[in-house]
Amino acid sequence: MAEKWVYLFNEGNRDMRDTLGGKGTGLAEMTNAGLPVPPGFTITTEACNEFFRIGKKFPEGMWEQVQQALQEVEQRSGKRLGDAQNPLLLSVRSGAKFSMPGMMDTVLNLGLNQETLHGLIEQTGNSRFGYDAYRRLVQMFGKIVLDIPGEHFEKDLQQAKDHKGVQADTDLTTNDLKAIADQFKQIIKQKRNLEFPEDVFEQLRMAIEAVFDSWWGKRATDYRNNQKISHDLGTAVNVMAMVFGNMGFDSGTGVAFTRDPATGEKVLYGEYLPNAQGEDVVAGIRTPLKISQLQDTQEQVYQQFVEVANQLERHYRDMQDLEFTIEHGKLWMLQTRTGKRTAQAAVKVAVDMANEGLISREEAVLRVEPKQIDQLLHPRFDDKAKQAAQSEGKFLAKGLNASPGAAVGQVAFNANLAEKWGKGGRPVILVRPETNPDDVHGMLQAKGILTQHGGATSHAAVVARGLGLACVAGCEALRINLEEGEMHVNGHVIHEADYISLDGATGEVFLGQIPTVVPKLEEQQELVTLLSWADGFRRLGVWANADYPRDARQARAFGATGIGLCRTEHMFFEIERLPIMREMILAETKETRQKALDKLLPIQRGDFEGILEAMAGYPVIIRLIDPPLHEFLPPYEDLLVEVTELRVRGDNPALLVEKGALLQKVSVMREANPMLGLRGCRLGVLFPEITEMQVRAIIEAAINLKQRQVDVHPEIMIPLVGHVNELKDQREKLEAVVKQVQEERGTEISYKFGTMIELPRAALTADEIARYAEFFSFGTNDLTQTTFGISRDDAESKFLLQYVERKILPANPFQQLDRQGVGQLMKMAVEGGRATRPEMEVGICGEHGGDPSSVEFCHQINLNYVSCSPFRVPVARLAAAHAALREKFDIRRDK
Amino acid sequence: MAEKWVYLFNEGNRDMRDTLGGKGTGLAEMTNAGLPVPPGFTITTEACNEFFRIGKKFPEGMWEQVQQALQEVEQRSGKRLGDAQNPLLLSVRSGAKFSMPGMMDTVLNLGLNQETLHGLIEQTGNSRFGYDAYRRLVQMFGKIVLDIPGEHFEKDLQQAKDHKGVQADTDLTTNDLKAIADQFKQIIKQKRNLEFPEDVFEQLRMAIEAVFDSWWGKRATDYRNNQKISHDLGTAVNVMAMVFGNMGFDSGTGVAFTRDPATGEKVLYGEYLPNAQGEDVVAGIRTPLKISQLQDTQEQVYQQFVEVANQLERHYRDMQDLEFTIEHGKLWMLQTRTGKRTAQAAVKVAVDMANEGLISREEAVLRVEPKQIDQLLHPRFDDKAKQAAQSEGKFLAKGLNASPGAAVGQVAFNANLAEKWGKGGRPVILVRPETNPDDVHGMLQAKGILTQHGGATSHAAVVARGLGLACVAGCEALRINLEEGEMHVNGHVIHEADYISLDGATGEVFLGQIPTVVPKLEEQQELVTLLSWADGFRRLGVWANADYPRDARQARAFGATGIGLCRTEHMFFEIERLPIMREMILAETKETRQKALDKLLPIQRGDFEGILEAMAGYPVIIRLIDPPLHEFLPPYEDLLVEVTELRVRGDNPALLVEKGALLQKVSVMREANPMLGLRGCRLGVLFPEITEMQVRAIIEAAINLKQRQVDVHPEIMIPLVGHVNELKDQREKLEAVVKQVQEERGTEISYKFGTMIELPRAALTADEIARYAEFFSFGTNDLTQTTFGISRDDAESKFLLQYVERKILPANPFQQLDRQGVGQLMKMAVEGGRATRPEMEVGICGEHGGDPSSVEFCHQINLNYVSCSPFRVPVARLAAAHAALREKFDIRRDK
Repeated sequence: MAEKWVYLFNEGNRDMRDTLGGKGTGLAEMTNAGLPVPPGFTITTEACNEFFRIGKKFPEGMWEQVQQALQEVEQRSGKRLGDAQNPLLLSVRSGAKFSMPGMMDTVLNLGLNQETLHGLIEQTGNSRFGYDAYRRLVQMFGKIVLDIPGEHFEKDLQQAKDHKGVQADTDLTTNDLKAIADQFKQIIKQKRNLEFPEDVFEQLRMAIEAVFDSWWGKRATDYRNNQKISHDLGTAVNVMAMVFGNMGFDSGTGVAFTRDPATGEKVLYGEYLPNAQGEDVVAGIRTPLKISQLQDTQEQVYQQFVEVANQLERHYRDMQDLEFTIEHGKLWMLQTRTGKRTAQAAVKVAVDMANEGLISREEAVLRVEPKQIDQLLHPRFDDKAKQAAQSEGKFLAKGLNASPGAAVGQVAFNANLAEKWGKGGRPVILVRPETNPDDVHGMLQAKGILTQHGGATSHAAVVARGLGLACVAGCEALRINLEEGEMHVNGHVIHEADYISLDGATGEVFLGQIPTVVPKLEEQQELVTLLSWADGFRRLGVWANADYPRDARQARAFGATGIGLCRTEHMFFEIERLPIMREMILAETKETRQKALDKLLPIQRGDFEGILEAMAGYPVIIRLIDPPLHEFLPPYEDLLVEVTELRVRGDNPALLVEKGALLQKVSVMREANPMLGLRGCRLGVLFPEITEMQVRAIIEAAINLKQRQVDVHPEIMIPLVGHVNELKDQREKLEAVVKQVQEERGTEISYKFGTMIELPRAALTADEIARYAEFFSFGTNDLTQTTFGISRDDAESKFLLQYVERKILPANPFQQLDRQGVGQLMKMAVEGGRATRPEMEVGICGEHGGDPSSVEFCHQINLNYVSCSPFRVPVARLAAAHAALREKFDIRRDK
Repeated sequence: MAEKWVYLFNEGNRDMRDTLGGKGTGLAEMTNAGLPVPPGFTITTEACNEFFRIGKKFPEGMWEQVQQALQEVEQRSGKRLGDAQNPLLLSVRSGAKFSMPGMMDTVLNLGLNQETLHGLIEQTGNSRFGYDAYRRLVQMFGKIVLDIPGEHFEKDLQQAKDHKGVQADTDLTTNDLKAIADQFKQIIKQKRNLEFPEDVFEQLRMAIEAVFDSWWGKRATDYRNNQKISHDLGTAVNVMAMVFGNMGFDSGTGVAFTRDPATGEKVLYGEYLPNAQGEDVVAGIRTPLKISQLQDTQEQVYQQFVEVANQLERHYRDMQDLEFTIEHGKLWMLQTRTGKRTAQAAVKVAVDMANEGLISREEAVLRVEPKQIDQLLHPRFDDKAKQAAQSEGKFLAKGLNASPGAAVGQVAFNANLAEKWGKGGRPVILVRPETNPDDVHGMLQAKGILTQHGGATSHAAVVARGLGLACVAGCEALRINLEEGEMHVNGHVIHEADYISLDGATGEVFLGQIPTVVPKLEEQQELVTLLSWADGFRRLGVWANADYPRDARQARAFGATGIGLCRTEHMFFEIERLPIMREMILAETKETRQKALDKLLPIQRGDFEGILEAMAGYPVIIRLIDPPLHEFLPPYEDLLVEVTELRVRGDNPALLVEKGALLQKVSVMREANPMLGLRGCRLGVLFPEITEMQVRAIIEAAINLKQRQVDVHPEIMIPLVGHVNELKDQREKLEAVVKQVQEERGTEISYKFGTMIELPRAALTADEIARYAEFFSFGTNDLTQTTFGISRDDAESKFLLQYVERKILPANPFQQLDRQGVGQLMKMAVEGGRATRPEMEVGICGEHGGDPSSVEFCHQINLNYVSCSPFRVPVARLAAAHAALREKFDIRRDK
């Protein structure tokens, strides 16, 4: 016996989504719930797969089952397909497991031919309706089933209207429509060398084949690749008796959501167009009515629809997106599916439904995707204002959406100016070819960052995300002229101090000021509630990366319960400190270096007091100096140009000598691959006096605060350890300093001493390293760089984005943790570390700490916490809860 | 009962080396063999360790056991320690398991005081002998036991001689010596506030304590650290009755080897000094006689000694280093130990002994350390000529010994000149601040390379080792002035074309021409034999890294049975090819790039024909292009200076535009961390036309040769794979090319397709990668870089050598494979790869392939072969045999 390829709507149910697709199960559920659904049936996804397996032929028995199911439909509708007197018309729609743009959508009115057309006209007494239905069928059949570009049909239709001097389709007469249908049939003949099939079964067969074929259409395939949807799912085909909303003013068609998809408010939300078919709503022939206006004309039908909507929402326990048609006062439900919604609505609907008792709090938490709430916390542009700017020609260019948020400000082309203006209270957008650590003091005072070069993990992007600033990076259309203080962008010239607006979420750059909306967490009551529920479910702690007290305070406000990474080197880049830092680096003797360090000590102590106080009661992990020292010196290339100029000009021999000497020093220090050079713990091993100063500053700060009754928990972190001996060396030297300071001050401080795990070798030898580390923190940025052998400074602009686009890599590993490679090392490190020190505190402080997929992995390998930029703390809290709940309920990501 | 701390010589045996030390077991063995050894005893290493454990006190019972053993010695010698009439004198010598410079050596004549001195004089009837013995005791006791710098004593002795106007100690009279002994006692009093002990037991006690103490002396501790000898071994103390070689011309002392330690020839080799004590031989008072001359005066004794020597060699089954003394015609053996020997001797002795049936062939192979034979194959300086150069003030400076071998040639400061001269037949030394791939064409024609910057794995070093050229790198004393064409080195000025000589094995640089010796493998019959035995024992294949036919031929001559790495990019750097390469790189369109590639195709095909033919019958692994393309362009910094000069001068606007455009292009291509940038397989993924050209060249070359009946086995290798999809992409594209060429030519070629494993992620996901790779080759240079996060271009000059010196790292991981980190990844990769593809061919082509310790590890993790530079092939063959034999006999490295 042949397999069952075809299910009547009443034979299916919601658990058969794999077989019947999304649309099919919705129709089945509604049918079985006794709701008014036109009779119909679904051809299974398995049939589609079998169709391809056996060389694009209908599977054995399928066509017979279609005909059988059709008889059932004919019986229930009291009409017959192809019957000249009482013709049954059909709609044929694709319906995969996941809704998929690019697949064949819908053919309406299937079953019309010369014969049945006359039957329809007689039956309805409406020849214009009949010819219009026929014209629509031929057009849709040509466009959708036969894949003839729609413009061929639209052009003819337009010519007809132009010829008659009318605007709307509805102004065309029966004869006009008749002629148009003939013309459409000619187009089919011309383009496909095919007569429009008079045989209605042939129509049906071809439509079903076309739905199947559309599964492997280019756009559908691309979409699946892009969305990581499996190619072996196949699509179902839904065949349903037509009902008509265009049978007069007691008829109509509409779409509605059971709640407001923009705000989440519990009101029926949608549109209704009297005397129209679904496609007319899309075509915008007339302005549709609000759904609530339906009760003014057809109160009973409206009440019935309200009840149906409620019933479906209760049934599915989620907000529904409904399609319906009213034919001569009778309601027909054509589709129900989970409604798409904005982030704001997602949060409100989830929290409301939990409060209504419709779903559990766990479900509510799982209903909101972590990345959705990202946008709820960054400033964003007012949508309408942005559209207006667009239409006013103020759009300048599009770059990489490197750090979300909207920013408006005056252009500054250098960091010093940005800092000056920013401190003076002017809103600033720092615009640079690219940024480097020298620019951080300016970035700190800016509202947003725009760069010409660099990818989503360039310096600009990383720092901006850390600071919660909007950033558009790699905007290659910019032509920046630093000397003139202006830039050219697609024909516009922007001068220093001109206003521009950046949308960091989309990468768009606009001229002028677009009004922004700045959401606050505490004002978003439902979000606060949802996150508090999430906190109850998660096992992972959520900490933040923060270098400054203001970031730490922001992180606390967003719910962080610790600082997982406080970078100490940014502190050295501030204008007044950099010269001392350079003095230290260029010192020829240990004594002169110590003198400079003595000047830096009170500054660092002040920094640490600030951040430890802001995080009173919580741990603060302070990472000792990490970047190569030459990053604090003027760039080699700049000096080279300067010295060459001085040499050729020959007008200032004294300056030439001075600059030449500096060039020589920088030249000795520069490295072929600074990422793998003299940095991290290697600095402390070679120049212990630097890290000793830093540890003294930390402990002195902690003691000062303790004496003021502030509860401090500093943790000292050594970066870039590759061999246990590096950590041993530093720990011995630095703990001597701790001891000495404690003795000087007569006070003890409780602190931890630990290391970053950011090199493969550290992960591979974690058991040994754990002997000297009380905590581990994964630096997954560097760990990804070394595990892949990819420099993040170079890769994104040079090849990484192409790799992702071409699916060589499934995702950008700097955004989403590579579980197989980097993750495997992390797992080894957790196991190795805890084998030596079972209570080892292990966390992550790389960029990945705020990425939901990565957070899930951190949960799975039993980290204690994730640490991310302050603005991503809520995302991480939710993602951590998702991970725990998915584990609890054994939910796998399903695509 | 107290532990046994003291063993009479007849109580020990050779298996007690841990307890009795090397010297002690030698004396025990000789005693038990019935050889004439003065009576004595050994205090154990355990006693030494216990001495320190309990706070520098003699262990319980030890002193009593010493006294007891002493009685035995007194009985056997018929003398008594401290006896005024018939005094026993003793020698006290340290003796650890491994001979260790820096430890207390020997105190002779212990037991003399005012009283016993007169006894000795009476007994011998020789007062000068008595006072001389006494003077020597006080001097040695002061210097060695009391640690008073020897120069204090030597100064007084010299003054005495000056005062008398004599040259030699022997010219001093009894009275002189008496006075000197008194002065020496004064020195002890002054420097140590101590009377020279009259109590002979006190002398013995102090001498034993001093031996113990010397275990933790600074030089001994440093030496152990340096040689990786464990600190908990402790030293033994040997106490032996004195015998005197200075009792007249029927007495004497000597040292001898059972074979010639320089050549390995089977002749007794050594020196003998009549009427002298051992120290006189060292002091060089008189010219010693050859050992064979002994038979002229004391034939019987000589014959006895020859027998003893033979007996000992047979007993120990190895060449022995003997010390002996003849006292009044009686032979006394004082020491036997395994004799140190030159590499040449080591090989000859091992092969001879195996042929003599004294040892097995396995033992013979194990007797020669692989690294010893390295020097046998590189050209080297004639030792005497080098000493002469040194004494003539021709030593210039010392750099890193980057690639062994001696080289003499004329200085060229740039690669083009070096190439020109080299091709013209002039011997050239290329001298550069540092080298880069641009210089390879010059290096190819040079005899040696000298650089100012860069470590032992800098470009210069790596290429030089690959080419078997001598290289001294990082010679920071050089002050090179490229524009003037000269360099200043420690006060010398060297101009272009001046001759210099480099010793790559020591890092020394000399002015002028030092004669060299160039050994040939085939002329070293014993080495050829030893290696052929080794080949029979090893499991690992030994292949070579070779980029040129001449290297391949050299590799074959040295016994390589495959090419594990043929780098294709060096071929592009040759003078006539570089412009085409640049044309290709700078191409704006695919078409212009293809045009350049079309020009490169026949050139590459020719290269491959050459190397495949040279290796006929063996596999040749050809690695597709690896370095970042910008390495083929002029350096950014050079262009920057050029453009700046042109800009400031303003005298050549056309050239400025041209150079400015090139600068712009190079600027776009340059990378922050080129090591982690757009290179390796990433190039082929992005620009498939490049690797497609290379594969076409390989297959066309192979077919051309096959048609000429040459047996070819090309293997195509993709570098820097991090994700299986990269390999999949390249394999699909490149196998299409193979297929196409085969079709065009109507011939099939058998070939393999594989990948390098040189990134941690590749090792971690080797199971996946193996789906598309028929072979793996470990690129341990890059794998070490990424696993450690260390750039080899930067690390050695910046911090790595300091790390090794300070024991942060046990060894330079670029020289000796880091088994724990990098090795762990390799092990995972072998297991992963073979899980997918059990017959997977796995090898190593990093620098480590020629390092004996690394070869051993490769054997342990079951690689199929190691591949190293041609000159290291013999080393690797021997190292591979060692690894197999050590595994077979379960021998561990013992230190």
